Amino acid sequence: MSIPTLTIVGVGLIGGSIGLAAKQRGVAERVLGVGRRQASLQQALDRGAIDEGFLDVQQAIRQADVAVFCTPVDLIAEQILSAAPRCKAGALLTDAGSTKAALVHTLNGRMPAGISFVGSHPLAGSEKRGPEHADPSLFDGKVTVITPTAGTNGEILDRIFSFWRALGSEVLVMDAGEHDRALALTSHVPHLVAAALAALLSPELIPLTASGFRDTTRVAAGDPAIWTGIFLQNRQAVLADLDRLGASLDHFRRALESSDRVALDQLLAEAKSKRDAIAEQPRIEDRGSKIEKRGHPQSSILDPHS
Amino acid sequence: MSIPTLTIVGVGLIGGSIGLAAKQRGVAERVLGVGRRQASLQQALDRGAIDEGFLDVQQAIRQADVAVFCTPVDLIAEQILSAAPRCKAGALLTDAGSTKAALVHTLNGRMPAGISFVGSHPLAGSEKRGPEHADPSLFDGKVTVITPTAGTNGEILDRIFSFWRALGSEVLVMDAGEHDRALALTSHVPHLVAAALAALLSPELIPLTASGFRDTTRVAAGDPAIWTGIFLQNRQAVLADLDRLGASLDHFRRALESSDRVALDQLLAEAKSKRDAIAEQPRIEDRGSKIEKRGHPQSSILDPHS
Repeated sequence: MSIPTLTIVGVGLIGGSIGLAAKQRGVAERVLGVGRRQASLQQALDRGAIDEGFLDVQQAIRQADVAVFCTPVDLIAEQILSAAPRCKAGALLTDAGSTKAALVHTLNGRMPAGISFVGSHPLAGSEKRGPEHADPSLFDGKVTVITPTAGTNGEILDRIFSFWRALGSEVLVMDAGEHDRALALTSHVPHLVAAALAALLSPELIPLTASGFRDTTRVAAGDPAIWTGIFLQNRQAVLADLDRLGASLDHFRRALESSDRVALDQLLAEAKSKRDAIAEQPRIEDRGSKIEKRGHPQSSILDPHS
Repeated sequence: MSIPTLTIVGVGLIGGSIGLAAKQRGVAERVLGVGRRQASLQQALDRGAIDEGFLDVQQAIRQADVAVFCTPVDLIAEQILSAAPRCKAGALLTDAGSTKAALVHTLNGRMPAGISFVGSHPLAGSEKRGPEHADPSLFDGKVTVITPTAGTNGEILDRIFSFWRALGSEVLVMDAGEHDRALALTSHVPHLVAAALAALLSPELIPLTASGFRDTTRVAAGDPAIWTGIFLQNRQAVLADLDRLGASLDHFRRALESSDRVALDQLLAEAKSKRDAIAEQPRIEDRGSKIEKRGHPQSSILDPHS
């Protein structure tokens, strides 16, 4: 695919990486970047992540054939609602936010004629920020979830699917609500636990932290403003999974309280087996093109190319 | 320093790395390895981690000038009590276990005349096992805690200090109980949390795990038998820090329940600031040779060379 003009709103780590990947892979002929500060636009220009920088969204958006909003999740809906009427016919809008249900719900049925929106979430990133950490291979072999609705037509679904594939990503099609419930466990609760644990670290213990503590709490170095938005947008699912985590911790606690070696060993073995399964799981592309329906019964994961 | 004969009991990741580091850095003239299986001894020999392999501890221990026990924490005390009477005069015994108080308490005053024991804990390792993952630079710039008692004389303290320094490690001298209380927070509770979180992962969610989940739960892939021993040996401190973690998680939960954006943002910012401090903390050697007294009031961290 070749997009005449790709506009990226928010040229941080994710936006900058999309720009770099799009340019290096010939996915877009021209990449426009929108930022709040000239300095970050200049960094993105210097990195080669964008061809032109804009402080004004409207100016950059009206030229877009495809636009990706890489801004904090609680800003995306408003920005898209404001930008969409300025877009040219046929424009496809998407985002890179970590929560999808509220966004998709807000935008559903509110796009002007000829303008399409499909939610996206590339499961890639890091605790680092800014275009200086952008990486053209950030999406290589990673999963991007796209969350069409009943109103998304097949041609649009194909375009958004092909866009992320062209950036190097594998693509899963999911219901937005199912996405959010899944990510509560695989991303949002881990972040919250990492933060709760990091909060207990006093400075004199720092020399006694090794790779275990550092890895377990790494994500707690992420941007608080971005994560506050994510937690609030996925509040119910996060609270539900915090309950599940509490119950899981209680199993370990009870085994420890009663010095039950057998129970403790078994709990650790079960956890290890589930953790080991991540490394053992075949890549999506190795499982064939058919992605089975799974997860929440009302939703499905579909590969539009299968 | 040059040790005529270094005996390593347990040639897994840690023991194998000690052997490789000792040989490559000229810390020992000869390294003997003790293992339960000929296959792992052969792997250690093939890696060059040991010069000679033994299935029988006694045979290898009687030749040792220094012996390091790299076996599960709940086996070390018994192994050392059984080995010490076979050691030659002047032998120095130590270990690499993750808990220290029970071991030091058990061995205190029970070494034969002329035989010394000082507990050690190199804060280095990984979720991987076996001599095939041994790494001669495993200890480079890492911290090893040594836990002498009132009965440890200065010459012995110097020898054990120099041994770990020669392997590339920085060394902290701590009270064994203080070590265990500190490690409950910096290692044992993170491991338990990682396991409790990994236990919640169902196979269909695996494609939706990214680096956040993977890092937060990495240590849960560790050997259950080794960790069961660690948890049981440090049961009280782990339970106390589990309570503190529960209280910390509750702060986040309450902010989320009440959709309190300001509180949530502040909690995440505090956690980020504590996590960021790990990267900002100067290395021990950059802080000068004087390691200040800190932590538990009855204990101290001392550098015998200051």
